[in-house]
Amino acid sequence: MDSVYMDHASATPVRAPVIEAMMPYFDQHFGNPSTVYDIGSNIKNVIEEQREKVAKLIGSKTEQIIFTSSGAEANNLAIKGSVFARQKKGTHIIISAVEHHSVLNSARFFERMDFEVTLLPVDEYGLVAPERLLDAIRPETVLVSIMHGNNEIGTIEPISELSTICKEKGVLFHTDAVATVGNIPVDVNELGVDMLSLSGISLGAPKGIGALYFREKLRLMPLIHGGIQERGRRGGTENVPAIVGLGKASELASEELTDRINHVQELRGILVAGIHERINNIIYTGHPEKRLPGHASFCIEAIEGEALIFMLNQEGIYANTGSACASKALKTSPVLVAIGIPPDLAQGSIVFTLNSSITFEEVEYVLKKLPFAVEKLRSISPVWRKKTAA
Amino acid sequence: MDSVYMDHASATPVRAPVIEAMMPYFDQHFGNPSTVYDIGSNIKNVIEEQREKVAKLIGSKTEQIIFTSSGAEANNLAIKGSVFARQKKGTHIIISAVEHHSVLNSARFFERMDFEVTLLPVDEYGLVAPERLLDAIRPETVLVSIMHGNNEIGTIEPISELSTICKEKGVLFHTDAVATVGNIPVDVNELGVDMLSLSGISLGAPKGIGALYFREKLRLMPLIHGGIQERGRRGGTENVPAIVGLGKASELASEELTDRINHVQELRGILVAGIHERINNIIYTGHPEKRLPGHASFCIEAIEGEALIFMLNQEGIYANTGSACASKALKTSPVLVAIGIPPDLAQGSIVFTLNSSITFEEVEYVLKKLPFAVEKLRSISPVWRKKTAA
Repeated sequence: MDSVYMDHASATPVRAPVIEAMMPYFDQHFGNPSTVYDIGSNIKNVIEEQREKVAKLIGSKTEQIIFTSSGAEANNLAIKGSVFARQKKGTHIIISAVEHHSVLNSARFFERMDFEVTLLPVDEYGLVAPERLLDAIRPETVLVSIMHGNNEIGTIEPISELSTICKEKGVLFHTDAVATVGNIPVDVNELGVDMLSLSGISLGAPKGIGALYFREKLRLMPLIHGGIQERGRRGGTENVPAIVGLGKASELASEELTDRINHVQELRGILVAGIHERINNIIYTGHPEKRLPGHASFCIEAIEGEALIFMLNQEGIYANTGSACASKALKTSPVLVAIGIPPDLAQGSIVFTLNSSITFEEVEYVLKKLPFAVEKLRSISPVWRKKTAA
Repeated sequence: MDSVYMDHASATPVRAPVIEAMMPYFDQHFGNPSTVYDIGSNIKNVIEEQREKVAKLIGSKTEQIIFTSSGAEANNLAIKGSVFARQKKGTHIIISAVEHHSVLNSARFFERMDFEVTLLPVDEYGLVAPERLLDAIRPETVLVSIMHGNNEIGTIEPISELSTICKEKGVLFHTDAVATVGNIPVDVNELGVDMLSLSGISLGAPKGIGALYFREKLRLMPLIHGGIQERGRRGGTENVPAIVGLGKASELASEELTDRINHVQELRGILVAGIHERINNIIYTGHPEKRLPGHASFCIEAIEGEALIFMLNQEGIYANTGSACASKALKTSPVLVAIGIPPDLAQGSIVFTLNSSITFEEVEYVLKKLPFAVEKLRSISPVWRKKTAA
């Protein structure tokens, strides 16, 4: 086996049909959609067709989708755009303790304007308790943002319960669904959210594209001010090839989702059971059932996660540790801290994220190589030697 | 002749070597640069190589370049990022009356926070007078943003003179160089600017990529908060294929710039002279010499610019009217108003932007078709009939 890539939450190869769909928009249909002549204005229709495909995937109306350059930009637009538009209504934002940096830091940005940001604690599985949210809401709360699926521990939050509370209290609700759209069924009406962010990366679209769903008539200040693109909600010439890529990837996801889920769930089951059989002193992080189907995350005792990644790398296995974006910035993952993992154990974080291309043979290969790597690292670990000698 | 595309300021086909450079980064080298294993972390080096190519094109250091998703995002980051980082130092921003919407609306955004925005008037050519800037600067001025080249009338502003004034007064200076980088030599040190925005579109790179140059140690609040990407200045997974495209396009521009300028300047000369010979009651807008080499803009009396664009479209000729981004939003161009063109005449705006692929035959074709189109439109114009009858 040449290599086994199991870090699809961080990045995923763009699939052939998606690349094929994008290609003509680089040099043939290259017009600027804001122009009035045919080869420009035709592109406007192309964009609307893609918007429809994205809308269909998440059960929204076409005109409720804004294209952005990433899931991170969608999160920034949701939080900053809605809070700036409601600035006079209150100065309190609620997020969970396990949000992505783009949500956390967008909320924190308002602290300089005398806003208060509440970080809702989560339980041992990473779940936000609805009653905790209810208690945290104040008259001055303008926005609640709680992620749909956690990219690090795979846990899926009870969004419809949380959004119901917000609706009753008249508070805006946003969810970062970057980890879920393309991986599980997502319907904005079932979730009952006012805004939802998604990313091309999780869908097998290229980097550099994301989208924000927003409820009709919701006021939103642009994050990127400019011309009339995206009905005045996001300036800058539309990234047509990437939008076409996201459209195609959304179409494929709509068609294939059930098969994808069955496939990755089965292989993830084999992977998790196999790891538990072969490695002791290890915990499966995140919720055992309420989790992303292709997501398997662990904390392994007496191991440095990064060292394990490097050892697996040498065997051609690609996995992640902690959050992809934060991996170099922080030694201890805030998500693992939030679910109560002791710092020592949190160091041993490893995350496998599967997609539908993963084969049984690849899972077997990981199950063969991983225990050796763990054993080797433990053999040079003073903590492990002390523990096993005792 | 099938078609003649002369709207390269709005969009330009991505050139074959640029597409070729980008392709492997969609499905082969697809890793997330923030990961620690080889196929991810290798991409970090690729990004830095592209950053160096962009830096070389504008005479900056590699680490002074931040990649963005567009020129509009670069303008937003420059203005919002620097003003938020200096919010306590003052509440006055100066821009010119002929800025792009992304600059104008980013500055205007601060009015809600009790900032004052001064729009410096321009002369008949669209030039900002340095003494006007000097007069406008107050102790509370935190930022001056004046564009390098105007996309609508082609005028190139005296940036080094303007930046010298700001330096003496201790005021930060930004320039929107979206229209100039790739079209004329641009050197950030000669210009003496603190920040400079550029766009991939003007360089023959794909849509969806831009960059901001910023002076070392300049404090900048991220526009898109997130992880540690771009040294913490811009969150979201890096758009690797587009960054590679911008790098390649910058490299090509560094090599070819002199030839490009000579070529488009010669053909623009023929176009402008030919139009003046064939069409009466027409004015050449913008500065006659201090202008973008491939840029020819006119206001034609008794003509609707949009109608002319449609007529040329039927002949396979693609040109623009007013600013590309604003073409649908406003009937009268603010730039043409700012240079004192009467509203009636401003309606007859037409803009040709050439690139190095334009041939003499294409210019001849335009010179053959344009006068007929103008004549036809004038024949049905009551204004023109009244004028010629008199």
